[in-house]
Amino acid sequence: MLVNSIQSFSPPRRILMGPGPSDVHPRVLAAMARPTVGHLDPSFVAMMDELKALLQYAFQTANPLTLPVSGPGSAGMETCFANLVEPGDKVVVCVNGVFGGRMKENVERCGGIAIVVEDAWGTPVDTAKVAAALAANPGVKAVAFVHAETSTGVESDAAALCALAREHGAYSIVDVVTSLGGVPVRVDAWGADAVYGGSQKCLSCTPGLAPVTFSPRAAAAVAARKTKVQSWFLDLNLVMGYWGGAAKRAYHHTAPINALYALHESLLMLREEGLEAAWERHARHHRALVAGLEAMGLGMLVAPAHRLPQLNAVRVPDGVDEAAVRNRLLERYGIELGAGLGALAGKVWRIGLMGQSCSATNLTLCLSALETVLAEMTAPIREGAALPAAAAELYGR
Amino acid sequence: MLVNSIQSFSPPRRILMGPGPSDVHPRVLAAMARPTVGHLDPSFVAMMDELKALLQYAFQTANPLTLPVSGPGSAGMETCFANLVEPGDKVVVCVNGVFGGRMKENVERCGGIAIVVEDAWGTPVDTAKVAAALAANPGVKAVAFVHAETSTGVESDAAALCALAREHGAYSIVDVVTSLGGVPVRVDAWGADAVYGGSQKCLSCTPGLAPVTFSPRAAAAVAARKTKVQSWFLDLNLVMGYWGGAAKRAYHHTAPINALYALHESLLMLREEGLEAAWERHARHHRALVAGLEAMGLGMLVAPAHRLPQLNAVRVPDGVDEAAVRNRLLERYGIELGAGLGALAGKVWRIGLMGQSCSATNLTLCLSALETVLAEMTAPIREGAALPAAAAELYGR
Repeated sequence: MLVNSIQSFSPPRRILMGPGPSDVHPRVLAAMARPTVGHLDPSFVAMMDELKALLQYAFQTANPLTLPVSGPGSAGMETCFANLVEPGDKVVVCVNGVFGGRMKENVERCGGIAIVVEDAWGTPVDTAKVAAALAANPGVKAVAFVHAETSTGVESDAAALCALAREHGAYSIVDVVTSLGGVPVRVDAWGADAVYGGSQKCLSCTPGLAPVTFSPRAAAAVAARKTKVQSWFLDLNLVMGYWGGAAKRAYHHTAPINALYALHESLLMLREEGLEAAWERHARHHRALVAGLEAMGLGMLVAPAHRLPQLNAVRVPDGVDEAAVRNRLLERYGIELGAGLGALAGKVWRIGLMGQSCSATNLTLCLSALETVLAEMTAPIREGAALPAAAAELYGR
Repeated sequence: MLVNSIQSFSPPRRILMGPGPSDVHPRVLAAMARPTVGHLDPSFVAMMDELKALLQYAFQTANPLTLPVSGPGSAGMETCFANLVEPGDKVVVCVNGVFGGRMKENVERCGGIAIVVEDAWGTPVDTAKVAAALAANPGVKAVAFVHAETSTGVESDAAALCALAREHGAYSIVDVVTSLGGVPVRVDAWGADAVYGGSQKCLSCTPGLAPVTFSPRAAAAVAARKTKVQSWFLDLNLVMGYWGGAAKRAYHHTAPINALYALHESLLMLREEGLEAAWERHARHHRALVAGLEAMGLGMLVAPAHRLPQLNAVRVPDGVDEAAVRNRLLERYGIELGAGLGALAGKVWRIGLMGQSCSATNLTLCLSALETVLAEMTAPIREGAALPAAAAELYGR
């Protein structure tokens, strides 16, 4: 590629209704564009304290070890595993989708032994199976599970799984990347030990940061490790010299200043709305989305009791080219839906109602556009589908 | 902290003349605030190709494996070590400042054996000592060194060190965090193998991204590893599924979309100026800065032949409280200088002339403000120092 032909990049305006990133509010984008200051600037250090308090609110925790990791959700995941798991440690890993599988990879790459408890994709983690695995394997160091599986849209019972881990003297490692801000995440009430989220889902910040929180007993375990954390970059014993709140912050790495401005603003918007109100908003629009989808004759992957409001896996009807539908939605309406991952590739769409994307406006547009496109692609156009027929006329097939 | 009292954060306007971040141009901040799109959006994927080409230009390389790691410079460092170093591998690590010491930590945390070649802080890596270490230790896998030591402002001879590594059948791992865009970095001409930079120094982008490039032979070594890379997040065998340029990009992690907009714009500005012109600008303002500092009676840490134009370690005069000087510069003028690190704490200031911060405007302001503050703090005010005396009158001591 000739670099001389490259010009400034102007992204198209999209409506982000996939598995994340979600729509970012102009307030957050404006915050991100404020002038960069140094990572040891007194004004910035004061902002870091606020950011920590806002994260504690979002996680519903008083854990002092609460901070945004300077990387995406995967770096947050690795922070939890690399800090808590030492070579030879046994970890029960619950796998019911893509991200549980990634946890297993993390355990093994830390030199740990993964004891996998599998459940079918689209179903929650089976607490009884986890209990059996713990009973059969004495000395398990941690139980790891995904609260909200982004690949399927399933919620698992975090409170029960954390309690089970504690009963067996194990730490819990919990992925709340997709749940944080969208459904109740109650780190202290659950007694969760190492928890990581992502900035770009229900917090509606730009992607690239991973909030994490460690319980005091998990933090003590990290401080008392026999071996060094295998990642220098993610070693919380070092990171806390900067984020720990000491009067003098020690340089570890240069914080992603402007990204942190954005996270501060997005968390502030969550606090202004209130967590309970945000959870209620996600639940309400989810009910409307499902009603609309079912009225179109579409089915959901997940049973009602286990559905995440913010991530809706919708079965692709037989004979429909799922990618062609997504492409037309993107090209004509600017709407991004998610494809299925892994075993669900080609079989589901993933419709995100996350954070700012979870609004009556987005929902109504999405349903209407999807109905139109599906009608166009399945000849003949169904009787009585006035809007799709008219729209198809207008746009041409 | 009560979260209810938190408001939007408005950073002060600073003039960033420390060791990074450097001043970010409004064009780059504006790019960062453009609407977020999905990480698999066709428009974004096309932008990624441009970004790779611009990085190849900045690195002066044709390496296909060239991409921005989704984390700060430390994550770029860890990408190079975690991908190239396997347990038991011997690595010669050149330590002549803070960042060489960090390389040693990386080698050891990857299970490698670090053979340390030490040089005094403020001097370059001694090529003869490295040759001796290679001769004394057959089978060394890699030679790691910092091209531009941010802690001291010293440039080492990257071409000679890369050649030496190659002669001994070893890979070279090169830190160009502070050099990239400020002085010649010629990855292909050097024959360098694994090279990492940072976004927030002479590229004048916001902090949080680490450009890396791997030579074809280094990329082949990563692909042929006997063991898995210990970091899932930084495993280039997986990351390349997304960044590799295949027709179909495979999801690995969610890219930091808006940060990448910013890097694209900052690299575009570098291309518009031209690399040679940028290098010449850094050299010119450096000469002016040194002349001004010497006229004030201040001395430089590093011998002229090894000075980095973009990072100037200036000796703190006896009896001067270095932190008080920096604080006054920050509070009154908004100028940020860097403190000494490690062995140099309290002994030097680090004055950065990086990227957008490297201008006649910044330089002139910095010299004048520093002279004023130093004069105020060393009683009696020197004869003939009209500006400082007048300013001291104006501002009060």
